[in-house]
Amino acid sequence: MAGKKTERSKKKRVGNMKTAEELAKKQKEVSVAEFFERNRHLLGFDNKRKALLTVVKEAVDNSLDACEEARILPEVKIEIIDMGNERFRVIVEDNGPGIIKQQMPKIFAKLLYGSKFFSRKQGRGQQGIGISAALLYAQLTTGRPAKVTSKTGPNKEANYMELRINTEKNAPEILKEEVVEFKKDRGTKIELDIEATYQKGDQSVDAYVKQTAIVNPHATFIYTTPKAEQFVFARVTEELPKEPQEVKPHPYGVEHGILTKMLKATESRTLQSFLTNDFSRVGPGTAKEICDKAGLLTNMKPEELTHAHVDKLIQGIRETKIIAPSPDCLSPIGEELMEKGLRKEINAEFYAAVSRSPSVYRGIPFVVECSLAYGGEQSAEETVRLMRYANRVPLLYQQGSCATFKSIIGTNWRSYGLQQSTGSLPQGPVTIIIHLASVWPPFTSEAKEALAHYPEIIKEIKLALQEVGRKLGSYVNKKRRLFAEQKKRSFIEKYIPHVSEALAELLKLSKNDQEKIKENLKELLEKYRGKLEELGVDNPEYDEEFANIGKVEEVQDEQSD
Amino acid sequence: MAGKKTERSKKKRVGNMKTAEELAKKQKEVSVAEFFERNRHLLGFDNKRKALLTVVKEAVDNSLDACEEARILPEVKIEIIDMGNERFRVIVEDNGPGIIKQQMPKIFAKLLYGSKFFSRKQGRGQQGIGISAALLYAQLTTGRPAKVTSKTGPNKEANYMELRINTEKNAPEILKEEVVEFKKDRGTKIELDIEATYQKGDQSVDAYVKQTAIVNPHATFIYTTPKAEQFVFARVTEELPKEPQEVKPHPYGVEHGILTKMLKATESRTLQSFLTNDFSRVGPGTAKEICDKAGLLTNMKPEELTHAHVDKLIQGIRETKIIAPSPDCLSPIGEELMEKGLRKEINAEFYAAVSRSPSVYRGIPFVVECSLAYGGEQSAEETVRLMRYANRVPLLYQQGSCATFKSIIGTNWRSYGLQQSTGSLPQGPVTIIIHLASVWPPFTSEAKEALAHYPEIIKEIKLALQEVGRKLGSYVNKKRRLFAEQKKRSFIEKYIPHVSEALAELLKLSKNDQEKIKENLKELLEKYRGKLEELGVDNPEYDEEFANIGKVEEVQDEQSD
Repeated sequence: MAGKKTERSKKKRVGNMKTAEELAKKQKEVSVAEFFERNRHLLGFDNKRKALLTVVKEAVDNSLDACEEARILPEVKIEIIDMGNERFRVIVEDNGPGIIKQQMPKIFAKLLYGSKFFSRKQGRGQQGIGISAALLYAQLTTGRPAKVTSKTGPNKEANYMELRINTEKNAPEILKEEVVEFKKDRGTKIELDIEATYQKGDQSVDAYVKQTAIVNPHATFIYTTPKAEQFVFARVTEELPKEPQEVKPHPYGVEHGILTKMLKATESRTLQSFLTNDFSRVGPGTAKEICDKAGLLTNMKPEELTHAHVDKLIQGIRETKIIAPSPDCLSPIGEELMEKGLRKEINAEFYAAVSRSPSVYRGIPFVVECSLAYGGEQSAEETVRLMRYANRVPLLYQQGSCATFKSIIGTNWRSYGLQQSTGSLPQGPVTIIIHLASVWPPFTSEAKEALAHYPEIIKEIKLALQEVGRKLGSYVNKKRRLFAEQKKRSFIEKYIPHVSEALAELLKLSKNDQEKIKENLKELLEKYRGKLEELGVDNPEYDEEFANIGKVEEVQDEQSD
Repeated sequence: MAGKKTERSKKKRVGNMKTAEELAKKQKEVSVAEFFERNRHLLGFDNKRKALLTVVKEAVDNSLDACEEARILPEVKIEIIDMGNERFRVIVEDNGPGIIKQQMPKIFAKLLYGSKFFSRKQGRGQQGIGISAALLYAQLTTGRPAKVTSKTGPNKEANYMELRINTEKNAPEILKEEVVEFKKDRGTKIELDIEATYQKGDQSVDAYVKQTAIVNPHATFIYTTPKAEQFVFARVTEELPKEPQEVKPHPYGVEHGILTKMLKATESRTLQSFLTNDFSRVGPGTAKEICDKAGLLTNMKPEELTHAHVDKLIQGIRETKIIAPSPDCLSPIGEELMEKGLRKEINAEFYAAVSRSPSVYRGIPFVVECSLAYGGEQSAEETVRLMRYANRVPLLYQQGSCATFKSIIGTNWRSYGLQQSTGSLPQGPVTIIIHLASVWPPFTSEAKEALAHYPEIIKEIKLALQEVGRKLGSYVNKKRRLFAEQKKRSFIEKYIPHVSEALAELLKLSKNDQEKIKENLKELLEKYRGKLEELGVDNPEYDEEFANIGKVEEVQDEQSD
């Protein structure tokens, strides 16, 4: 039976079977532009509302990066025009350094092309995909080319180009090219026609611009909505953020593959000099210690290291204490501004902020910052509100898959006085801002909407949350005790008339004296309440003083003297 | 003052300012392999546990696809060896058609290379990234090359290669190459050393293999865990799934950019023949109607269509009723198997399944299938359990960002008898399986962990959920009514002795008669209860019959006659 069955199925198989040779004919290379054209949702273009945001975001990110890199205070104009039938024209113009003519086509119409990928310092853009992706989306949905104008100096010509991407080749096509008038010394302007919808609210372009302005106080934004409303977010400081410096990788977390690549590429002659020259934070002492722990000689030639040697070297690095990465390559927002941003946005009764010291994942430095606002007009019935930023860019989508979200739900907020059910955001009148500043923030998709779950990053976010959480906890507990005490007091207050009446009867006092006692008792209570509010209830003397309230007789005696 | 300030800041700006020319020097092309090496989390390699799963998944997906395409019943061996120190060797071997020698390097060691991207039929792989990404991860974390063996027929040589990716060029490098012994007629074997951790549970390799076996009953899996346990999931059918056929795009949802591309590439001479030849489901009548509605002539030459014409053509397509896409390109699991899979996995009391008819997003056909199990050993206190599949591949991560999740929380489960708080999964003893079969399932990342939020897909999932939901609702409500009735009955039962006693007293019956009455009353109740269980409480006669129970006296009278 079994034999027969096998034979039958074998026959059937062979009958229709395709050979490896037939299948091989279909194998083909895919251009990265074709890949993203098909997968436009990876780039943030999975629905029309988000598409509008993504286009604006990519253009604004580029403008801010260009201005800051050239050390120019940014002024970015954003205009969205509703052209009807779910089509919008997005125009973003900056006062940045401009782009030289030869570079314009590639920067705007070639995916995976840019200056940030190989740079080891903090920036908004990173992969050289964003703005070309926006162009790809425009040509996919409306078929219109991008219109780009750029001028690099007061005495230079302004170049205008109409660009599209040849997706089969991932290469730019110039449809039109001319010299035009441009009314400023330098800057770049891009115009894209896209299919989109406009809607106000939490994940809107309006929210994005507002949140961007909060953490970029050195930039001016002039934003015209599709409803032709204009919002101006003027800069509040003339100081550019500290310019991040390029740094070498930190040894912690460097992977086998990367280390092998570096050993191959290095110009250093010995392992010792390789470690000190090609990494940050490694001096001769540290380099020697790494080699010792790895059981390798410091004078080995880098090209001599075998596969097993590299494994040992990684082990040596793990076992050696190396100082934290330099914050030079990063440009965190800072505690003060983190709190200021919240104060601007949220009318609350308590604020706290923390900016952690730099840490490393996969050899890449990062800093986590966190601020928190409690109470005020915020609803106590809902879950806390989370505002997420990476390299000063607000993240508005995919909260649930973000490392920040995972860190919050993994933190025990009950000990800080908030309610929380397992696996959920805590509940309470709280807004939390989390900012990750990094040379390379790891996003869960090319659309840069959420941070990937690297354990080192989650750990740092949790530590930051715990720090502000403890501050919150001591405030909330203080408030709770205060509230309990006040309740006790109001209880006592209720009995003052009866007490004074009883005293009057016992001591045979006149009606007048009785009134006096009542007044005195009230005054006494007021006095302590005033102190209470002023000092808070943490004052150790408080309980003692409060105890005196019971001694009404003596006090009364003194008063009547 | 203001003037002074501006001047100062201008000076400062100009002092450090970088020119466009300086900035241009840094612009550079990024290879797609470098891009993914840096962004390995996009490919499912953001933590060590998931890395193990991803490597196995990519290899098994490839094996199953190859076998099915060649019409061979798959037998896939998966072996994971714990090599200590968080290193694992993953070996996956299949009985597929094999890969010809020239193709081996590119298939395994070049990103964006494959046969599926341009194919318009359902498959597991799609982008030509997966297995090369696994190789990239191996070389990044352990530095070890991939070891691949393949044989394409009984009389052919088996080729063995050691491969790595040159990331700067996104090109394969062959480290070793030889002819070896391979003990089967044909097949492919891949061996990768990676850094990973092994852990059992919901998101483990164990769970993946089990869930894969459930929806691939035509495949045999022999799985050896890192603990050296062996699990065999033998095939339960000798029938391969229906072979999906290549289809042309469906006109619905085709975008401007794609349409323009198709018009350029077509060999058809007229708009009429373009529509009928290059699309599926468009006959001459439909083509004419589209042209009429678009206000275009059917005999226009495709190359003559301007930008505005394309806009009109899209409008014409939107306004024309075109039959749903052919399911030929898809290979859904089917209602029967969807339910069977659940029955195998979950011991429940009620099952329901639905397989929707094909629908379209962006011109791409898809089918949504859904099954549900209620009650039994499942906990009523927790949220429902969701099992997600795309093209017969289980999705184990990123549930929160999946279109299936969004569809479930957007469905009102209260009307189907489950508890649900806003924005959450419903609560109850329920498991739901959702399967999307599509020519191109849109994933939220290259790791293919969750489905993107395309409105058309969410709508179809919701409709499927509502269909099984209604079935569930009528069952749950029936059960609830049954329960209420039974409670009523047991209440009455309690009073039978008292009633019989009272009757005995009123009618002056003997002790014997009183016992008889009691027996009769019980019998009567039993009779109706039996009926109730047999018929369910939907029986319209039931209430009438039940009402008779109240009439104990008359019944008793009859009995005593």
